[in-house]
Amino acid sequence: MPRAPDELRALVEERLDELRLWPQLHGQAESVRYSLSVGGKRVRPVICLATGEAAGVEPEEALPAACAVELVHTFSLVHDDLPALDGDEERRGQPSTWRQFGEAVGILAGDALLAEAFRLATAYETPHVARELANATLGMIGGQYLDITGTAPDEATLHRLKTGCLFAASVAIPLWVAGMPLPEQDRWRAFGDELGLLFQIVDDILDGDGFALAHGVDGARALADEAAERARTRLAAIDADTSVLREIVDGLAVRTA
Amino acid sequence: MPRAPDELRALVEERLDELRLWPQLHGQAESVRYSLSVGGKRVRPVICLATGEAAGVEPEEALPAACAVELVHTFSLVHDDLPALDGDEERRGQPSTWRQFGEAVGILAGDALLAEAFRLATAYETPHVARELANATLGMIGGQYLDITGTAPDEATLHRLKTGCLFAASVAIPLWVAGMPLPEQDRWRAFGDELGLLFQIVDDILDGDGFALAHGVDGARALADEAAERARTRLAAIDADTSVLREIVDGLAVRTA
Repeated sequence: MPRAPDELRALVEERLDELRLWPQLHGQAESVRYSLSVGGKRVRPVICLATGEAAGVEPEEALPAACAVELVHTFSLVHDDLPALDGDEERRGQPSTWRQFGEAVGILAGDALLAEAFRLATAYETPHVARELANATLGMIGGQYLDITGTAPDEATLHRLKTGCLFAASVAIPLWVAGMPLPEQDRWRAFGDELGLLFQIVDDILDGDGFALAHGVDGARALADEAAERARTRLAAIDADTSVLREIVDGLAVRTA
Repeated sequence: MPRAPDELRALVEERLDELRLWPQLHGQAESVRYSLSVGGKRVRPVICLATGEAAGVEPEEALPAACAVELVHTFSLVHDDLPALDGDEERRGQPSTWRQFGEAVGILAGDALLAEAFRLATAYETPHVARELANATLGMIGGQYLDITGTAPDEATLHRLKTGCLFAASVAIPLWVAGMPLPEQDRWRAFGDELGLLFQIVDDILDGDGFALAHGVDGARALADEAAERARTRLAAIDADTSVLREIVDGLAVRTA
């Protein structure tokens, strides 16, 4: 019986809480823990664990990879919040990392989150887990560059980079943990692409920007429904018990926060 | 006949010049290339290649790992130069990356260098190359934290983290590329530790700070000579042709720039 999203999320929270950071980080560890504790929905690591379980990997085995994905996500938030970028003083009702620890330690906190993510991702025998994570991270950075410089060719490219890359990696990484050869990953990866798009469209509807601005709320809602439907179709094409992933798609489609 | 340090350095320069960055970086790639082109002595990647050759690895095979080490070094310079940290406007007579591209792109340039380093380091079948690099990176970040917050327990700890970690990794990483099991790496690693210390002491003599302030120039010079001698002793204990590494030690001991 595969575990429900809430159970998977509890596993992620527990592992993040007790994460053993590299001792040589010294006092820098405090800001890393703070950044991680500010929380969030842990959507990406839960997708990681659910995909892993569908592909035959126990959550315990996929947890380091799932946490690595969450650390890369947190790295991107910590650096995006910096004064030179978005200048956000709050994150989920708490002071953002740089606001809490100062700008210098805030920059180093993002750096440390990224390096810790790769330390976790290289705990596997295959280098593909970490390689997939590096590629996704570079895509996110490229997306952030297009965003702050206003040079994105179009909205779709921007979202594919800023959000889509790491969602796609959240699906692809556990496949490597499962030892699945690349040619067999196609259908799973196609699912991951739709999932990232679905998340982004709903995010924009909730925030009233992006897709909601470009297509109106009703138009964006229709696009979200289409993306969710494509994601379900992709899942149905996979020969495995993808019921939990299906539940995640349904939840992302109707989420209100 | 093992290649001389200058030949190895030429290989590094050539590979860095033609480095294929991840296409999704888009325009962010420009600041990454700029940061790398500002140059430097490429000491770490040359040590990487020389150690690899002594351990039986062709430079061509060790080059991605050597470049990964140089990218992590460059990442640390780019972020250290930021206004919130050292606020350096110049690096080797050219505008520092943030001064050239703005602070936001400067932050992202460091992030991209770090992620590209892990992309290079995960090109090997063994995850140990990237894991060793992640550990060294975390040590460097911890050292930078101790430095900017003035919380280092002592000067030696600070230098071991800020400089020593990546020098030690420059020796350890090519051993993984060579497929050398951990228990056989001891003597090489002991050499790497001395090399980092030697580099730092001479650096401080040239800059008139750190060891030179604490021990006077003559005292620091004596410490450098001792570190160089210990490095040579470590090398002599290794059953391999370490003549090029010996040449590098001799060069580091007497360098004037």
